[in-house]
Parts: sequence; structure tokens; C-alpha cells
Amino acid sequence: MNPRVSIIMGSTSDLPIMEKAAKVLNDMGIPFEMNALSAHRTPAEVEEFAVHAAERGIEVIVAGAGMAAHLPGVIAAMTPVPVIGVPINASLGGMDALLAITQMPPGIPVATVAINGAMNAGILAVQMLAVGDASLKRKMVEFKASLKNKIVEANRDLAEVKYDFKTN
Amino acid sequence: MNPRVSIIMGSTSDLPIMEKAAKVLNDMGIPFEMNALSAHRTPAEVEEFAVHAAERGIEVIVAGAGMAAHLPGVIAAMTPVPVIGVPINASLGGMDALLAITQMPPGIPVATVAINGAMNAGILAVQMLAVGDASLKRKMVEFKASLKNKIVEANRDLAEVKYDFKTN
Amino acid sequence: MNPRVSIIMGSTSDLPIMEKAAKVLNDMGIPFEMNALSAHRTPAEVEEFAVHAAERGIEVIVAGAGMAAHLPGVIAAMTPVPVIGVPINASLGGMDALLAITQMPPGIPVATVAINGAMNAGILAVQMLAVGDASLKRKMVEFKASLKNKIVEANRDLAEVKYDFKTN
Amino acid sequence: MNPRVSIIMGSTSDLPIMEKAAKVLNDMGIPFEMNALSAHRTPAEVEEFAVHAAERGIEVIVAGAGMAAHLPGVIAAMTPVPVIGVPINASLGGMDALLAITQMPPGIPVATVAINGAMNAGILAVQMLAVGDASLKRKMVEFKASLKNKIVEANRDLAEVKYDFKTN
Amino acid sequence: MNPRVSIIMGSTSDLPIMEKAAKVLNDMGIPFEMNALSAHRTPAEVEEFAVHAAERGIEVIVAGAGMAAHLPGVIAAMTPVPVIGVPINASLGGMDALLAITQMPPGIPVATVAINGAMNAGILAVQMLAVGDASLKRKMVEFKASLKNKIVEANRDLAEVKYDFKTN
Amino acid sequence: MNPRVSIIMGSTSDLPIMEKAAKVLNDMGIPFEMNALSAHRTPAEVEEFAVHAAERGIEVIVAGAGMAAHLPGVIAAMTPVPVIGVPINASLGGMDALLAITQMPPGIPVATVAINGAMNAGILAVQMLAVGDASLKRKMVEFKASLKNKIVEANRDLAEVKYDFKTN
Amino acid sequence: MNPRVSIIMGSTSDLPIMEKAAKVLNDMGIPFEMNALSAHRTPAEVEEFAVHAAERGIEVIVAGAGMAAHLPGVIAAMTPVPVIGVPINASLGGMDALLAITQMPPGIPVATVAINGAMNAGILAVQMLAVGDASLKRKMVEFKASLKNKIVEANRDLAEVKYDFKTN
Amino acid sequence: MNPRVSIIMGSTSDLPIMEKAAKVLNDMGIPFEMNALSAHRTPAEVEEFAVHAAERGIEVIVAGAGMAAHLPGVIAAMTPVPVIGVPINASLGGMDALLAITQMPPGIPVATVAINGAMNAGILAVQMLAVGDASLKRKMVEFKASLKNKIVEANRDLAEVKYDFKTN
Repeated sequence: MNPRVSIIMGSTSDLPIMEKAAKVLNDMGIPFEMNALSAHRTPAEVEEFAVHAAERGIEVIVAGAGMAAHLPGVIAAMTPVPVIGVPINASLGGMDALLAITQMPPGIPVATVAINGAMNAGILAVQMLAVGDASLKRKMVEFKASLKNKIVEANRDLAEVKYDFKTN
Repeated sequence: MNPRVSIIMGSTSDLPIMEKAAKVLNDMGIPFEMNALSAHRTPAEVEEFAVHAAERGIEVIVAGAGMAAHLPGVIAAMTPVPVIGVPINASLGGMDALLAITQMPPGIPVATVAINGAMNAGILAVQMLAVGDASLKRKMVEFKASLKNKIVEANRDLAEVKYDFKTN
Repeated sequence: MNPRVSIIMGSTSDLPIMEKAAKVLNDMGIPFEMNALSAHRTPAEVEEFAVHAAERGIEVIVAGAGMAAHLPGVIAAMTPVPVIGVPINASLGGMDALLAITQMPPGIPVATVAINGAMNAGILAVQMLAVGDASLKRKMVEFKASLKNKIVEANRDLAEVKYDFKTN
Repeated sequence: MNPRVSIIMGSTSDLPIMEKAAKVLNDMGIPFEMNALSAHRTPAEVEEFAVHAAERGIEVIVAGAGMAAHLPGVIAAMTPVPVIGVPINASLGGMDALLAITQMPPGIPVATVAINGAMNAGILAVQMLAVGDASLKRKMVEFKASLKNKIVEANRDLAEVKYDFKTN
Repeated sequence: MNPRVSIIMGSTSDLPIMEKAAKVLNDMGIPFEMNALSAHRTPAEVEEFAVHAAERGIEVIVAGAGMAAHLPGVIAAMTPVPVIGVPINASLGGMDALLAITQMPPGIPVATVAINGAMNAGILAVQMLAVGDASLKRKMVEFKASLKNKIVEANRDLAEVKYDFKTN
Repeated sequence: MNPRVSIIMGSTSDLPIMEKAAKVLNDMGIPFEMNALSAHRTPAEVEEFAVHAAERGIEVIVAGAGMAAHLPGVIAAMTPVPVIGVPINASLGGMDALLAITQMPPGIPVATVAINGAMNAGILAVQMLAVGDASLKRKMVEFKASLKNKIVEANRDLAEVKYDFKTN
Repeated sequence: MNPRVSIIMGSTSDLPIMEKAAKVLNDMGIPFEMNALSAHRTPAEVEEFAVHAAERGIEVIVAGAGMAAHLPGVIAAMTPVPVIGVPINASLGGMDALLAITQMPPGIPVATVAINGAMNAGILAVQMLAVGDASLKRKMVEFKASLKNKIVEANRDLAEVKYDFKTN
Repeated sequence: MNPRVSIIMGSTSDLPIMEKAAKVLNDMGIPFEMNALSAHRTPAEVEEFAVHAAERGIEVIVAGAGMAAHLPGVIAAMTPVPVIGVPINASLGGMDALLAITQMPPGIPVATVAINGAMNAGILAVQMLAVGDASLKRKMVEFKASLKNKIVEANRDLAEVKYDFKTN
């Protein structure tokens, strides 16, 4: 089984955040791989990975990093595969990572999600795979519907909260 | 010819920015449409658009907006199609739009690019379409190569800059 | 008893903040309702709510949300009822929510209060209801007077603090 | 004719911004007054104004100020009338004024709109007056509809923009 | 014994910060008073205080407040006595209070110190009193010398830290 | 005639800002001196100045600087004379200078005014000199009253602005 | 003549900023080279450059870039040569570039100077070369002395500014 | 054994951060010294240190400070030795220290590393010493290689993480 999505993180300490992307892919039955590669400490490995990702069958890359988060942009510079960037909060509330990932120059986009937003990175990866794959698109719609149900159910808790002048 | 990508902007005053996305799609020969729809002033039209985008054959949506830029997120909430968000600088250097687009809650990602980064939004849209489309992927690689050439050529200008101790 | 104010929150996890608005309304004897509705996960429910709020007799809406906090603005776009927005601190100290709520485009105001400032949202709702309701305005004045008394009483504690050169 | 809304600005140099609030009130046929009062240079006049606003029949106050923008909060502290605050960009992109107006302590809300968002302040004032005034609420709905039409018309301009692969 | 300095805080919860100013004054033998007064909840008391401070013999005012921290500026507007402002971190790392205190308009300065910097506010108050009071100036110089000694002594701890290649 | 106030700026390019402090002192008849001294380029001159300021009769120092604005703090570290710091906007809207001047460590206060707020620095200097000088305090009160008159007069301009529903 | 310093910029549009570094090196008689290389558009060229810089005799690298400024960090990751980073203001006042350059992870430092601070990058490069080169260190001291003279001379202009109460 | 690097910190409370620089130097066998010196509390000692550092054989200075972090810049102003600045997070996430250290004016660079980035300051110091010292450069390359190995080993942990659809 070849991986279709590659989840890359700058350091294994990012795993508790990045595994939310893995969980989404797993729940959707999409084969994926996970690696720690640092734009700064293992640049040759990053290049090796990025240059060959497409030919290995990788269709989407999810890359998370903190601080001066170069990893997503550096990978995006070396592959035609779309790269989703996850800014990880390691300092300054994650603002440094957000800017270092999102403010890419013309020519090399990184599809940035929220600070620590790895779950959304996983969903976005599936949405990209579902471009022209009707069955996966249907699964995605069901997945989103289940998220909605959580809100609907949670609303029942609100009905439990009692005040004299509360009418619902 | 059915549009495959839909470019939406919050106001026609965003056109000078957003047409950079249009140019990329045009150069790559991808049919697209362009509309101004405001999350706040035309919410019913936004809903109409978002709910039916997939069935009309739209495969990627590019949405640009400024200030409290809700448009990309509101559309993303109502379609399985991936949404690319372009924060437009209308105040605070575009920081308000960047945060309002990128900081989406779990479940509803928006693929955010740089402030005013509509050209990258166009490229990212093509990258998404090229998932599983080898010929489009090749075109994309060529397109990026042409960007590189600009840098290489520009470097010749640097060779013109003369200082006594400059060695190249 | 029909609710006059509707308190909406993006997620039930916002309840510990948003119930401060509920407490004010309850203390002032104003009938209200409370619901969790997400601009992103339950957009149809949000629309259903917003479009019919006025005809159900809702006179003021209080909406709290965090991160890319679209809920208040999305509701404001679909109702003539004034909407009070409460930015909730879920990331970046609440700065993302503050900007996503307050920086609305011309035509669709949201009356924004402080980050996590749900108590003030409740008071502001009463102030709006008191426009042209002299008895409610009197109650509001009394309520504010009681807040002042807390400061006055607290000042007595300061009188307990002793230093050699402190003269009061 | 008694004014129902009072528009206050910290300095007459704020007039080009604040008159957008005046225009909305004028268009809606709501009697209003306009004054320059500085929380810092004319504190006695501010107090005189704020303490007597309600008894003079003022139902909503719109106050705009820049920098350490104390005016809206200072007025709110001395009246039961709801106060709408307009942060004016005089430095730091208006971020100082936004924080100085919106971050009010529990007990004294200011209904803050966007930086330089005086038009929205005018609309919000009308929305407050329309609480329990069905005819004004109808006028407000019409006013918002006219804003929507601008977007709809502007969209026609987009139809003029031609690209080879643009389909609308 | 008449107080020469008045320490004002927006709320008694600010006491753990503001008492650092009190300690400095006490250590220097300068009579002072301490009160909690809120620009927003007790505006009449603030006015009463500010208008009569000079005639009561108050020579310097130290005022601390958090969030939209109007207290120092509001007092400064009503007295010729110099006002020292202490921004208190109650949200956003204290940035809101810093801007709301320091960004005063031309005509009404507030002498702002660091976020939570009440000790420095006390020292600055003494420096102001020492203008033209040679004996107090001498005491101030001694006080600062004692601060320096702490650094000098602390340096001895550094001498205890041993590394193979550390040479001091 | 000995100078009582010393106005220091980091560079003569700061003169258009800093001369507003000079004007206030001149208008109040207070002898002053003006110098350009850089904490970084002329550290020995800064030390020479700071160490001897008090004995030369300087009673207050006003120091303006931009970027990593060390000048006010460096001077404050070497004199018992109170130092007023003026952050000058040379980059980042002046935020770098504001933080570099205001965030002083315990023991060495700098009395910081608004970004580019040299006029207020001049007024604050006079307020410090007026501690215990009743005649100067009176002059200061008159000076502030004249500022108020500008607001009052400006208000007459507002009376000229006519709208159908404007009532004043 | 072999270059000892390499000046790299992300785009030739950065030349007006980066040539300030070139000027310093030229004035100090240090052979250097200048190239435009983009971390994102010419990653292979960047690698080629970085991996071989040391063996070509490059002793210090100065790299300037804007937005998500990866260039300095990417180079630093592939060479033992010290890298000086110049954040260039292309958006957000240069804050994005400052954070993307300075916030490097443990192991790969970039010596960051001020936003647009290329002149200082040139000086810092000379300071590094002067480690253990007494004659260059002397030249550097002279160079800095000449900067000081500019301040001293400029001060003469201040002496020209006349006010009635100005004493110097 | 003469120290070649001097590590200075504004306060001994910065030791837990700054000793990471010491550890790097120790591991690389480079003699160094460590001192606490405050730009504000011990300015004469700072001057004494800075003016004589070069003649004592100090080749690189590493200076860490928090808040309005003047120490690195003040030292840089008085020595030709290159100064590495470490912004220490004592407030505002360290943003105040980062700006106060990095935004130096033309003529006086400080080589700034990340907030709390003392380990990188140590490495950068070694890189500077290695300019023209081939054996130290080799050691530095080995040191960096060992950092890379940590990433490579950590990656094995990732291989332990099992999901049904994870392929590595």
C-alpha cells in the first residue's frame, strides 16, 4: 500500500499536534506516512524527500513546524505536490510560525491552516484528494456532518442550564 | 465550457489583487469564473453559490476578502470543495484579514496564502487540480521553472553593479 | 414568556464565559434563550436562527466566538436585530477573535465588547432594551450603582494596609 | 426637534470620519447633534454632556476618538444611554484606539465598531433605536438592501473583465 | 502628616502590583495615601479626587490600571499635578493597558512606566519630588546604589558556576 | 542663564519632532538646552552628559530616540534627574521605540510619553519643575486652559456643518 | 582576488537595501560577491552555493529577504560559515521577515540585524572577519569613529536653532 | 588560560537561559567567562568591561537581557568586538527584548538570535571564532552533525506510532 499523503514535522516533539492530521487520514482510510525532517538540521533529507515525493506517489504533503517555520515553504519550493502548512505554537503564541509559513513569495504557495490546526490540515488534504473523486467527497461530507452533530448534541447540555428567566 | 475554479471576492475593489489569480488560471488554460459576493451584504447569494458549487462542477474555490474577512470561511462551511483564502490588506497591514481567514476552528479548513497573495492562490488551485492529473502537473512544473528564470536573469543585472572590491 | 434576548455561542465550551451575559439578563428579569450554533459547522441552523430572530420577538442578540470568530458577523448579516459580539480568547490572547468580530465592513456593524467580556455584553443588551423604556433604564442605573459600591467597599480593605508613612 | 442621537468626536479633525455616522442618521431621518468634546482637554464639558444626555432625550451616543481613546469609555461611565465607540486611526494603524475603546472593564460596556467604522456606528445607532420600533426596523432593512444592490451591480463590472478561459 | 504622593488603583485586585510603589515611598520616608478609584465605576469620586489633589498638597499622583486603562489619563486631565501611569497586565500581556495609558493626545501627558512597573513608578515619584530638594536627591542616589549592589552580589553566585573551560 | 531642562535627541533628524518640546519650554519661559547625543555612536559623550547633568543644574531631561531606543534608559541609568522618554517612529509605527523606552527594569524608570509625543514631554517637564513652585503651576494651568479653548472654538466649526436632521 | 564575503538577496528588487552592505565592504577594502538566489524559486542554486561556500573561501555570508524570509536560515543550515540575516520590509512593516529570520531553532543560528539594516550587516561581517585580525579591527574602529563624527557635526546644526530661552 | 568569549547577562535570574551558551562553548573547549552586568544598574561596570574587552583578548561577546534590553547594544557601542544579543522573555513573550536588541541604528550592529536562543548564541560565537580556523570549523561541523542525529534517531520513534493506514 503506497502512501498518498506524507505528514512531515520539524521535530518529534510536534507529534501531539501533528497526529491529529494522521487521525483524520486514518479515519478516512487514506494511506499515509509520517516523518520528522528539519529544514535546518536535515536539509539534505528534506531535499531528498521533496524532490522524490511526487514520483513515489505522494499527492499531498502536510508539514508542521514552529518558530521560524521554514519546513513547509522549503518543501513547497522543491515539489509540484501541494503543501499544507501547520504553524505550531512554540513561541509568541505561534505568530512567528504563522507568518513564516503563510507569507510565501509569489510562485511558491503554502496552504496554511490555523496555529496548531493539524486536524484541519488532515481534512484539507482529504479535500484535495477528493478533487475529482466523488466517493471520497461523499465520505468527507459525512465526516463534516458528524462534526456538526457534536454541536447539535452539545446544545442539549445548554438546555440543562437553568435560570429563572431562561426560556429554552 | 464549465468553470473548474471559482474566484470570489468580497468587493469589486479587490479586483486588482484577485485578478492575479485569474491570470494564473488563464495562463494554464483552466476554465474559471469570477464573482463578487459579500459574506455580509449578500449572505443568501453566498449560500446559493456555496451549496451548489460542487454540483456545478467547481473543483476549487479561491476567495479573497479584507478586514474581518469571513467570506472564505463562510463558503468553506457550506461546501466539500477545498477553499483557498486570500487575506486582502484593507487595514492593519492585512493582519486582521490574515487572522480572520486562517484561524478557522477544527472541521472547516481554509487554505490560506499570504496577504494579497492572489497569484499564489491561483497556483495552489492548479496544484490541487493537478492531484492525479500528470499533464497538468507537468505544466505546473514548467510554470514554476519560468518563475525561476526571472531570478536567474535578474541576477545578470547584479553582475552589472560594479564596486572596486566586488569580484563577480 | 417569549425570550427578548438570544445568547449564542460557537461552542458549549464557551459557556463559562458566556453565562456571565446570562446572569446579567437573569438578574434584570429579562427573558432570554441560550444556544450553541457554529457559523462553520451548523451554517444552516445559524441562518434559520438569524433570519427568524426578529419575527420571534428577539430584540437583541449576544454572540460569542473564538479564533476566526465569524459567528457574530454572519448573524448580523442576516437580521435587522442589533448583534453584540464577544471575542473569546481561544488563541493569541483573543486578538484573532477581537479583529474577526470588530473589523466588520461598512453596512453590517457588530457591537463588540472586550475579550471575554460577556458580562458587559449582557449589560449592553439591557441598555439597548432600555432605549425608550424608562423603568428598565432605572433598573440599569441601580445595577451600575451596585457595581460602584463594590469599589467603594473594596477601598476599605486598602485602609487596612498599613505602612509607616501611609496617611490613610 | 429634539436630537435622539449625539455624535461626539475627540477633535474636529475627526470630522471626515465621523460624518459618515451623521450621513446615515440623516438619511434615516433621525434627529441628531454633533459636538467635539475631549475626554482630556474638556473633561468638565464631557461630564456635563454625559450626565444630562438621558434627560435631554438622547437615546444613543456615538463617540469617536484616536490614540489612547478614552472618550467613549468616559462617557459610558456617566450615563445609562448605550455608547457606540469608533476607534480612529491616528497612530499604530488604529490598534491603540481599538484596544483603548473595546477593552472596557466589567460594568461599563462600549459597543465598539471597526477602526474608522463611523458608518457602521450610525447604522448600529439606528438598530438600537429600532428595538421595538417596527417602522424604523423596516427602514433599516431597506437601507441594508440598498447596500446589497451595490455589490450586485458591481458584479456586472466583473462580467466585463474578459480572459480567454473566463466563463462568465 | 499630609500625604505628598497619592497612589490610585483601578481595583483593589491591583494591590499586589501597586504596593511596590508604596514600599518605595515608605522606604524613602515620604508620606503617601492609597485609594482604589475607577475611572469607569466611580467617575464622580475620581473627579473629586483629581480636582482637589493639588490643593490638598498632593505633589505627584501614581495611577495603575489594566485593560482599557483610562484612570491615569482621566486624572491627568483634571489636575496640574504630574501623573505617573502604571499599565497593569490584565489581558493581552498588558499591551492594551500600555497603549491606553501612554498614547495620550497633545496637552495631557501621563508619565508611563513599564507593564506592572509599580516599583519604578514609586522611584519616579521620588525623583520628581527631588527636583530642587538636594537631600531627597541624595537619598535617591543611595537607594539606586543599593540596587546596584544586588547585581554585584549576585555576580558572586555566577562565580560559583563551574565549567571546565570557564575562566572566572 | 543656566538651562533647567536638557532636550536630547538620538539624531538631528529627530529635530522636527523634538522641537515641539522646545517650544513648550520656550513658551513657558524655562531656560533649556538642546543636544544630539547617540547612546550608540557617542556613548562617552552620553556618559559625560548624564553624569554631570545634575551638578550643572539640569532638573529634568527629555530624551527622544527611535528604533531600539536606548538613549533615555542609558541616561536614566547615570543620573538622579528624572528622564522623560519620547519614542520616535522610525520603523514599525514606533512600537519598537515605545517598548525599548518604556519597558525599563526595576530601579531605573523612564517617564514615557506617546510615540512622537514631544509636546507632551515638554509639558510633563514643566509639571515636574512646578512640583513645589506655585507660580509655575499656575502658568501650566493657564497653558492647559488655552489648549481647551482650541477644542471649544473648533466646536464652532462643527456648528457650520449642516444636515437636514442635525439639530445643532 | 577571491571574495571573502558573499552578499545574497532573495530578489534583485532588494538591491537598494542590500547594496548598503556592499558599500561597507567596499569601503573597507574587503573582496565580496553579490548574487540573487531565492530559497523558494532557486533551491538547487541555493544549495549549490551554500554547500560550497566554505571551500571557495567565503568566510561570512550576508543574506537579505522579505516576507516569509527563509533564505538566511536555509543557507545557514547547509554551511559552517556564519550567516548574517537582513529582514527586508516587504509587508507588515517587516515584522514577518524579522520573525522568519531571527526565530531559528536550536542548532542553526542566524545573526539577525534590524529590519532593512543592511549597512549594519556589512559592519557585522567586517567585525567577524576582524576576529584575530588586528589591522582590520583598527580599520573598523576608525570607520565607527567617522560615524560618530557625523553626530558631532550634526550637533552644530542644533546650535543654529534659536529660541529665546534656549541656552546653547 | 585567557577567556576568548565573554557571556554577559543582565541579571543572574537569566542564568538558566544563558548557561546554554556556556555549555556549547564548554563542549567545544573554548575558554570563556560569565558575568552579570546591568546596562541600567551597573553602567560604569558595563563601560569598564566593554572598553577593555578587546585588549583582554575577548574575541566575541554574548549578551542576554530582557524587557527594554539595552545591554547588548550598549556594549556594542563601546567595543569593536562582535556582540551577539539574546532576547530574554521577561514580558510580552519576549517581543520587547527582541525589538530592543535587534532594531539597532546604522553603525552599531548586534547579531541577534531567537528569543531565549542562548544555545544558538553559543554556536554563533564558535562560528565567528572559526572564521579562518579550519580545525574549529571542523569541530563545528561535527557538532551540527550530532544535532542532526537527534532528528534522525527521533524519527525512529515515529516509526513506532501505528495507525491502520500508516505505511511507515
